[in-house]
Amino acid sequence: MALVVQKFGGTSVADADRIRNVARRVVETRRAGNDVVVVVSAMGKTTDELIRLADQVSSTPYLREMDMLLTAGERISMALLAMAIQDHGLDAMSLTGSQAGILTTNAHGSAKITEIRGDRVRAGLDEGRIVIVAGFQGVDPDSKEITTLGRGGSDATAVALAAALSADACEIFTDVDGVYTADPRMVASARKLEEVSFEEMLELASSGAGVLMARSVEFGRRYNVPIHVRSSFHDGPGTWVKEKTMEEAVIRGVAHDASEAKVTVHGVPDKPGVAVALFEPLASEGVLVDMIVQNVSNAGTTDISFTVPVEQLDAARTIAQTVAESVGAAGVDVDENIAKVSLVGAGMKSETGVAARMFRILSDHGINIEMISTSPVRISCVVRGDQVTEAVTSLHDGFDPPRMSAVNS
Amino acid sequence: MALVVQKFGGTSVADADRIRNVARRVVETRRAGNDVVVVVSAMGKTTDELIRLADQVSSTPYLREMDMLLTAGERISMALLAMAIQDHGLDAMSLTGSQAGILTTNAHGSAKITEIRGDRVRAGLDEGRIVIVAGFQGVDPDSKEITTLGRGGSDATAVALAAALSADACEIFTDVDGVYTADPRMVASARKLEEVSFEEMLELASSGAGVLMARSVEFGRRYNVPIHVRSSFHDGPGTWVKEKTMEEAVIRGVAHDASEAKVTVHGVPDKPGVAVALFEPLASEGVLVDMIVQNVSNAGTTDISFTVPVEQLDAARTIAQTVAESVGAAGVDVDENIAKVSLVGAGMKSETGVAARMFRILSDHGINIEMISTSPVRISCVVRGDQVTEAVTSLHDGFDPPRMSAVNS
Repeated sequence: MALVVQKFGGTSVADADRIRNVARRVVETRRAGNDVVVVVSAMGKTTDELIRLADQVSSTPYLREMDMLLTAGERISMALLAMAIQDHGLDAMSLTGSQAGILTTNAHGSAKITEIRGDRVRAGLDEGRIVIVAGFQGVDPDSKEITTLGRGGSDATAVALAAALSADACEIFTDVDGVYTADPRMVASARKLEEVSFEEMLELASSGAGVLMARSVEFGRRYNVPIHVRSSFHDGPGTWVKEKTMEEAVIRGVAHDASEAKVTVHGVPDKPGVAVALFEPLASEGVLVDMIVQNVSNAGTTDISFTVPVEQLDAARTIAQTVAESVGAAGVDVDENIAKVSLVGAGMKSETGVAARMFRILSDHGINIEMISTSPVRISCVVRGDQVTEAVTSLHDGFDPPRMSAVNS
Repeated sequence: MALVVQKFGGTSVADADRIRNVARRVVETRRAGNDVVVVVSAMGKTTDELIRLADQVSSTPYLREMDMLLTAGERISMALLAMAIQDHGLDAMSLTGSQAGILTTNAHGSAKITEIRGDRVRAGLDEGRIVIVAGFQGVDPDSKEITTLGRGGSDATAVALAAALSADACEIFTDVDGVYTADPRMVASARKLEEVSFEEMLELASSGAGVLMARSVEFGRRYNVPIHVRSSFHDGPGTWVKEKTMEEAVIRGVAHDASEAKVTVHGVPDKPGVAVALFEPLASEGVLVDMIVQNVSNAGTTDISFTVPVEQLDAARTIAQTVAESVGAAGVDVDENIAKVSLVGAGMKSETGVAARMFRILSDHGINIEMISTSPVRISCVVRGDQVTEAVTSLHDGFDPPRMSAVNS
């Protein structure tokens, strides 16, 4: 008998009908002979509604109370799902993050999972029950305070729970079919991948493929939990994320991300300590810096460019201007009209010429490259925002990842 | 510095505006120099909405999961109230029933409070915080399962918490101004009582005065916690429920209850064991029998009448018919068109002639009495349902409880 952890997000449990659908899928998995642990998010718009209420009663809600408030969301969805499963004649029980032993740091609103005890989950399984666990939430064991995990928290709960229970698989049910070679809304020829390695998925997640957050993939990789990303609306297979794929494709896919902006500090004196002066205050203010590029020194000064989420651009600019003044730089420019295009594939570690070919394809399409950053399994280029579709499409056509994947899967 | 427990019901926290109003009242109480513990119910219609969702996903929802579901309601209101208080610059923290140490039996949906630990409540107060506790919910210490207390549960939480913390008073904020000498919607001359004894309030609550449930009054009496029933919409004083009133009024008020029906078993053989045969199965099926009247024996048979809540009439009739057959009774009649009218007042213990005067007043108004039951501080008569307004009005006029109360308060 296999143990499967199944995670259903907010859209999958948005109303009573969908909860009954989820119950049917869980019951099928159980009747097929598996032990099942289910992780659920809050129903559809519940979290948004609770945040709206909080804004109506307080100008600056305390994070501790926000966590108390928002964790009501999963409590509702998990209890309803338990009832819907019980209606099929199977035994089910719901557990809060605290009851399931999801221990976290004390950072309200963005806690990290430190340990999963899971005693009551195991006891429930031993009694033949389907156990439903609230995603997104946990408890700080020192203060006994309820915490939430922040963005992508329910996926992290599911994968971490699967790791702690030594589950055979973790299934992430979502509103897309799986991981694609490119965004199918942008590239008509994009194809679903049957499998992708943890390393590739990490790069894809960090490069704009929103289907799975990097923190969940990181958990999967660390504890070697195979993750199946699949649709909650039909039974077809999705994409398996696992340690080794059968053979490494050179290029697994093309990702893009238009949610960042670029900050450039011009005429920075080229001397030790300048980068620290800039990126330490950015980090301490919580600005999520993605790419950093520093050009070669020219007459004793250099330009430093970096990208940040658009919603943090104002904070980043303010900090950059202060630092620029204090280190004697020439000035600060910002640019919101950019997009990042990334080629991802574990095969490029042993393949030469991938970068050159990427630059050639972009150049042939009249697309200027403004920043470049690379990892062993990824090459990212920042281009003009209004050229992103052409960049993604031409790279997808030029590298033909669907065919390569098909050959290798 | 006094310690006050304030309880706000669902209508008092029905939306963001009302929650802000409640926060203002709590803050005023705190700024007046009191330590404050607040007990809240779920917002307005939240509980009804959650029950509707449960009905949509399951034909017979498990009670354990209903408790998990419904306890999300207070979690939302208490977190929002904490935020609204924090917005005034005061420190506040919300605690679930489990966190506040509200220990209960394991009867999901109708648990009884067995102990209140309250460690985290006291710690919060010691740190200068306003502590908000979820009403209606607790935890079974053996199974660690979350429970709910059933009808009137939030009032019970508040009074029990006040008892455990040795609070100076428990304020129950509600949508009425206090306890009246009669239902003010029925009797224009009804007046608000300034105070009423626990004993009288118990009889009033059991006789149809819905403002406070008997179980809360019972807690108040056992631990001698003065309870102040007052309006959540204005600052005026309400009614104090306490051990001794300054002087006992003969009649404190007239209560009525039209929510019961009458069952009569005719021609019951007058021999030992017949009452047991009837009332044991009723009790074991959970039928809440209120008044019981057995007439004097006539030619070896007697009639037994009793009243039950209208919604339990069908169950009561079925049981009565089975028993009637097995003991050889003549038959069973039921009557939904009845009402119970009660005079309540601790002074009638030492006063003679109250019952005679009550019967005279009803008779003078052409109102037939169908059943009578008495306690040391109460006389109840069952009359025709369509005569209830005339019965209450004529008794209120005849005994003039407003004047008597005014004299004594």
